[in-house]
Amino acid sequence: MAAFVDKLRRASQANDSLLCIGLDPDPDRLPDGVSTADFNRAVIEATSDLVCAYKPNIAFYEQSGVEGLRALEATVAAAPSGIPVIVDAKRGDMANTAQAYARALFGTWGFDAATVNPYLGGDSLEPFLEYSDKGVFVLCRTSNPGSSDLQALLSTAESGAAVPLYQRVALLALEWNTRGNVGLVVGATQPDELRWVRERCPSMPLLIPGVGAQGGDVAAAVRGGVDANGELAIISSSREVLYAFREDGADGFAEAARRAAVRARDRMREALPARL
Amino acid sequence: MAAFVDKLRRASQANDSLLCIGLDPDPDRLPDGVSTADFNRAVIEATSDLVCAYKPNIAFYEQSGVEGLRALEATVAAAPSGIPVIVDAKRGDMANTAQAYARALFGTWGFDAATVNPYLGGDSLEPFLEYSDKGVFVLCRTSNPGSSDLQALLSTAESGAAVPLYQRVALLALEWNTRGNVGLVVGATQPDELRWVRERCPSMPLLIPGVGAQGGDVAAAVRGGVDANGELAIISSSREVLYAFREDGADGFAEAARRAAVRARDRMREALPARL
Repeated sequence: MAAFVDKLRRASQANDSLLCIGLDPDPDRLPDGVSTADFNRAVIEATSDLVCAYKPNIAFYEQSGVEGLRALEATVAAAPSGIPVIVDAKRGDMANTAQAYARALFGTWGFDAATVNPYLGGDSLEPFLEYSDKGVFVLCRTSNPGSSDLQALLSTAESGAAVPLYQRVALLALEWNTRGNVGLVVGATQPDELRWVRERCPSMPLLIPGVGAQGGDVAAAVRGGVDANGELAIISSSREVLYAFREDGADGFAEAARRAAVRARDRMREALPARL
Repeated sequence: MAAFVDKLRRASQANDSLLCIGLDPDPDRLPDGVSTADFNRAVIEATSDLVCAYKPNIAFYEQSGVEGLRALEATVAAAPSGIPVIVDAKRGDMANTAQAYARALFGTWGFDAATVNPYLGGDSLEPFLEYSDKGVFVLCRTSNPGSSDLQALLSTAESGAAVPLYQRVALLALEWNTRGNVGLVVGATQPDELRWVRERCPSMPLLIPGVGAQGGDVAAAVRGGVDANGELAIISSSREVLYAFREDGADGFAEAARRAAVRARDRMREALPARL
C-alpha cells in the first residue's frame, strides 16, 4: 500500500479522528500582531493530537508573495512528522509543466499529498502519480454552487451510458490508480453524490471539504465518506477552527482552536456507524 | 473595451506580431553559469520588439521554491510596460480561495492576464473576472494527448444538444464574459477545434499553445486562430526560442533567441490571410 495512505491511516487511528484542519489563514482575520507563521504553528501545536491531517491551501500563502511562501515553509516545518500535510493546490498542467508542479509540491515543498484538477486528462496527472509514496487527490465534485456548470453535465464516453461528469471523473480515477495513491475530492455539500463515489471507489481516501461555513452536514459527510472500516474520510474544517477565538478566545486563539477542534472531532466520531 | 485587450492589440500591432514567447526556463537546460532571472531578462531584451506578449508558466518558477519566485519577480520587472505578460497558472478554486489566487496573480504579482481552469464552474472564475482590466484565459481545449479524456466527452446540459465538453466550455465562456475580459486557451494541435472556437467566439482573444515542440502547425494555428482583422491570436512558442542557442548560439543565447523569434514571427505573418 502506498506510503501516503499508510501515514494517513496511522494518524487517523492514533488520534481516533477524521478531522483535517484547513490551514487557510486570511491575514485580515488573524489576531492583532500575530504573523501567519506564528498563528499556524500555535494552531498546529494545540491540535496535532486531534487531527488526521492538515490541509494548507496554497492560494492563501501565494497572495502574500514570497513572504507568504516563507510562512508556508514554516507551517510545513511545524507539522509533526506523523501527521500528513495535504496541499490544496488544485494544480493541472501537462508534460514537463506538470512535472515541474509535482516537483514543486512533492520535492521542493515536501508535502505528503496534493489536490489536482482533472480537466487536462490522465496524462496530465501522471507526473504527480509517479510519486508513488505521495497522495494525489483528484477534484471530482466540488462544494461550490457553480460546480454543476461542468461537473453535473451528462457526459458520454465512446462506450458506456451518459453519467454526470463528476462520476466519469471518479471512474477514470479508478483507471488512473495503478499505484494505489489516488484519492478524490468530494464536497460535503452533495451527500448523495458523496455516497455514490464511496460505493464506486470503496478503498480510495476521500478528501471532503464543505462542512461548517459552506453548509455541509458533518454526520452525512462521515456516514457517506468513510470506507467499510470507518476510515479514509478526511473531513476538512477551516474557518470554524481557525477563527474560533473570535467567539470564544478569552484565553487565546490556540486554546479556542483546540476547543473547536475537539468539538469537530467529537461530532465526527459520534456520526460514525457503530464499530465492530 | 477591457484594458487587457487594448494592451494586447497595441503590442501586436506595434510589433506586427502574433508571437508570444513562453518563458518556461528549465534550470537544467540554461547556459552554464546563467541564472533564470538573467536568462529571461536577456531574452526579453532581445525579443521585445518581436512579440505580442510574454507567457511565463509559473510552475517552472515554483519548482525552485522561493528562489524561483524571486526569478519570476525579476522577469515580470524586465518586461517592457507595453507588452502584456500572461501568467500561465491554470488556477481554479472557489470563493475566498479564488479571490486569493486572483489577488496573488493580478495584485501581488501584477500580471496582465492569467490562465484559469473551468472545472469548478462560473462562480469559481468570477473573482478573476472582477479584475475587469485584466485578461482571463479559460482552458478550453488543451494541446496534450490526454486532453480528450474529459474535453472530448459528449456533454449534455439541461437544454441543448450534446456537444464535446470543450465546446460547452466555450459557450459558457461567452456567458461568463460580461466584462469583455475573457479569452480561451485552445491548443494548436487541434486545428479543426480551434476553427470551431474562433467561429463561435469571434471577438475573444485566443491563447494558442502547442506549436513547435508539441507538433501543432503554425500556419493552421494562425489561420484558425485570428479574428476577422487578423488579430487576437496569441501563438505561444517556448522551447524553440529559449533553447535556440543549443543549435545556433555561437554569438550567445540571446542572439540565438532573437533569430528564432524573428523566424517564428515571420512564419506567422506569412500565414496570415492577405490584409485589406
